[in-house]
Amino acid sequence: MIKYPNGQKPINETKIKPTKKRHILNAANRGMCFESDINKTNEYYRVNNIAIITKRPTPINVVKVDYSKGSLITKAYFEKQSTTDYNGVYKGRYIDFEAKSVESKTSLPLSNISSHQISHLKDVINHGGIAFFIIEFKPLNEVYILPAQEFLVFINNEKRKSIPLSYIKEKGYLVKEGYLPRYDFIKIIENYLL
Amino acid sequence: MIKYPNGQKPINETKIKPTKKRHILNAANRGMCFESDINKTNEYYRVNNIAIITKRPTPINVVKVDYSKGSLITKAYFEKQSTTDYNGVYKGRYIDFEAKSVESKTSLPLSNISSHQISHLKDVINHGGIAFFIIEFKPLNEVYILPAQEFLVFINNEKRKSIPLSYIKEKGYLVKEGYLPRYDFIKIIENYLL
Repeated sequence: MIKYPNGQKPINETKIKPTKKRHILNAANRGMCFESDINKTNEYYRVNNIAIITKRPTPINVVKVDYSKGSLITKAYFEKQSTTDYNGVYKGRYIDFEAKSVESKTSLPLSNISSHQISHLKDVINHGGIAFFIIEFKPLNEVYILPAQEFLVFINNEKRKSIPLSYIKEKGYLVKEGYLPRYDFIKIIENYLL
Repeated sequence: MIKYPNGQKPINETKIKPTKKRHILNAANRGMCFESDINKTNEYYRVNNIAIITKRPTPINVVKVDYSKGSLITKAYFEKQSTTDYNGVYKGRYIDFEAKSVESKTSLPLSNISSHQISHLKDVINHGGIAFFIIEFKPLNEVYILPAQEFLVFINNEKRKSIPLSYIKEKGYLVKEGYLPRYDFIKIIENYLL
């Protein structure tokens, strides 16, 4: 059995058809690692009194609940996140970001970023919040922050289905990997985004 | 069948044992109405470009997923919210609050406010965010905002298991009920909490 860094099983691990198991587990594990690293970073920030950033729970549409078994949910569906993965507060300012872990070495695919998420990021910027993407290029072992403003400039001016890494390097910021905090994105907020 | 203001069924409506049905439906409906009114207020704020406030999804611990049926969740449990119900941004500032609808005419019971939620509210205040409770006293048709600071002063100095309405009236603010926005809490933030 695969061991997960935070001791939790990913939700995808159970009841997977054998033929799909390897692929789904790998995908889940990859996504989970980056998420888990960001969660650990947030925990470090909280404990060290630097910032309070929390993950929004995955929205789930509950259809059936069995109250005879202690509110056991017996039928439900995953819903699409209409906002972003994380938000919180740093020095009184509102922080909001979406985390993406990609398999590409060259670009961030736009296919799994929803129009709702894009509207949400626009809204956050318009109200003076600090919004960005934090993107892990898995095969490169590199993590970047791309401010939501630069993301919006790109999608408003280009018809490409992905954002090239060269654009992200030019308009964004490399996040250095460390032990604790794992990805010190607050340093980038402090130095460049406030 | 009870009609819900936003056209949605509350999750509690399905698969309820007949003997418990009336009680649970009423409780669900009451809570749902207040929640739905706050959600409508937030939607009004978003559309009218006043603030972006979103509800955190209920955290659910997913145990079993049936991938042969399009990622159908077949076993899951509700988890306790470790933070608060709502957060967002107003004029760049971080906003965080918990909504409570109570049946009492005289006090806010502290029994269903978790220690995690209290720590979270402390953290938010320490980092310069604006944090409060919005409390509906259902039998009185009255809604109040109690700043998290005043909440903390009370629980640090009193051993009572509920906060009297008189304290909430003294240290908090009455939220006037309207058509749209339903509960204009941003006005109170603007006038008293910024």
